[in-house]
Amino acid sequence: MELLNALEWRYASKKMNGKRVPEDKVEKIMEAIRIAPSSIGLQSYSVIVIADPELKNQILPVANNQLQIVDSSHLLVFAAWDKITTERVEDYISLNAEKRKVSLESLDGLKSKLLNISKRSDEENFELAARQAYIAFATGIAAAAEERVDATPMEGFNNVALDELLNLKDKGLRSLTLLPLGYREKEKNWLVNLPKVRREKENLFITEKVLLDKN
Amino acid sequence: MELLNALEWRYASKKMNGKRVPEDKVEKIMEAIRIAPSSIGLQSYSVIVIADPELKNQILPVANNQLQIVDSSHLLVFAAWDKITTERVEDYISLNAEKRKVSLESLDGLKSKLLNISKRSDEENFELAARQAYIAFATGIAAAAEERVDATPMEGFNNVALDELLNLKDKGLRSLTLLPLGYREKEKNWLVNLPKVRREKENLFITEKVLLDKN
Repeated sequence: MELLNALEWRYASKKMNGKRVPEDKVEKIMEAIRIAPSSIGLQSYSVIVIADPELKNQILPVANNQLQIVDSSHLLVFAAWDKITTERVEDYISLNAEKRKVSLESLDGLKSKLLNISKRSDEENFELAARQAYIAFATGIAAAAEERVDATPMEGFNNVALDELLNLKDKGLRSLTLLPLGYREKEKNWLVNLPKVRREKENLFITEKVLLDKN
Repeated sequence: MELLNALEWRYASKKMNGKRVPEDKVEKIMEAIRIAPSSIGLQSYSVIVIADPELKNQILPVANNQLQIVDSSHLLVFAAWDKITTERVEDYISLNAEKRKVSLESLDGLKSKLLNISKRSDEENFELAARQAYIAFATGIAAAAEERVDATPMEGFNNVALDELLNLKDKGLRSLTLLPLGYREKEKNWLVNLPKVRREKENLFITEKVLLDKN
C-alpha cells in the first residue's frame, strides 16, 4: 500500500528549507482535500492557502514563532464554519441538485434535516464541523506524504489572533489547524531520525475477544 | 497520486455483500490507522475491531438498523479518551522513552506539559481527543480505499447506547464513529452511480488574494 510507505516516510518537520513545492503537487494535495470524505458531503469548513512571504511573516508571531511557517512553500489554514446558517444549507442543496442533476424539491427532506441540525447550538455545530475539517486535514497530510512533500500539522497557535489577522470571523470561520507544506531541512531536523511514538497494535486496537471477556 | 484515484473510487456504501475482507488487507488498514499522524504521538483514542456476527447483530439497532453493520466484514469503532488521566500520560511517557531509547527523566518537560493539559476540563480534552481520532479515522478510510475495500463512515448512531453495549465507559472511552469494512453490493447501491457532492476548488479554498482584497 503506497499510503503505508508515505505514512512511514512522513513526520512533523520543524525545519523546512524554503524551497517551493511545484504547483502541480500543490494542486494534487488540494484536490485530495477537496474530494476527502465529508458527512453528507456538507464540507463544513474552508481551507486558506497562503504563499505570500509577507503574510506568512505576519502569521509567524501568532504561531509561537515556529519557523516552518515562513520556511514553508505554502501554508494551509483549516477553518471550520462557526455556525450552520440557512444560507449555507441552501448553497449546499443547490450544489447537490446541480451535481446530481435532480430538482431542488426532491431534496426537501435533506434540506429539512440540515435545517434541523442548524438549530443545535453554534458551539456544538462548530465542534462537529471541526471533526469534519480534521478528515480533510488528515487527507491533506496523507496526500502530501504520497507526493513526498513535507507537511507539519500545527495546532499550537493563537486561534483568536489568527482569525483576526485573516479576517476569518467575517467569513463565518474559526481556524483550527495549520499545515505548512514544504521540504525538510535534513541536517537541522532532530526529529527526522527518531522513531515514531505509536502504541503497539495490541494496545491501540481492542478486539472483540478482549471486549467480550471483560463484559 | 494513488490516493486521488482511491478517493475518487470510494463512496459511502450503504449496502455491502457480506463477503469477508482478507486478513492481510485488514492488517494493512489497521497499520495505517496505527501510524496515522497524532498530536505529540499521544493517540488519545482506541479502535475496537468487531468481526463477530452476533455482536454486530446487537449493534444493529443501536445504529438505526443500517444493514452495513451486519453486512460488513469487520466493523471498526473509533472511540476517544473520556479524559486524560495521569496513568495515560505516564504510559505515553514510558512508550516514548522506550521507542526513542531515552531516559524517563529526559522527558520530564514533556510530561509536565501533558499533565498541565490534563487539567483542562474533561469535556474540552474529549473534544480535542475526538479531533485526533478523526485523523486516524480519515487515514483508515483512505487506506481502505487504496486496498479497494469499501468503508462507510457512520456518525448517526446512539453513542451512549453503544458505549454501554461495548462497556466502553469502564475503558475510559466514548464512541465517535463507526467504520464498517466490506464490499459494496453494486446492484443495490443507488449512491454508487451518483457524482460526489463537493464544492468546486474556488469555493472550498480561499486564496490569499481574495483574503487580502477583503481585508
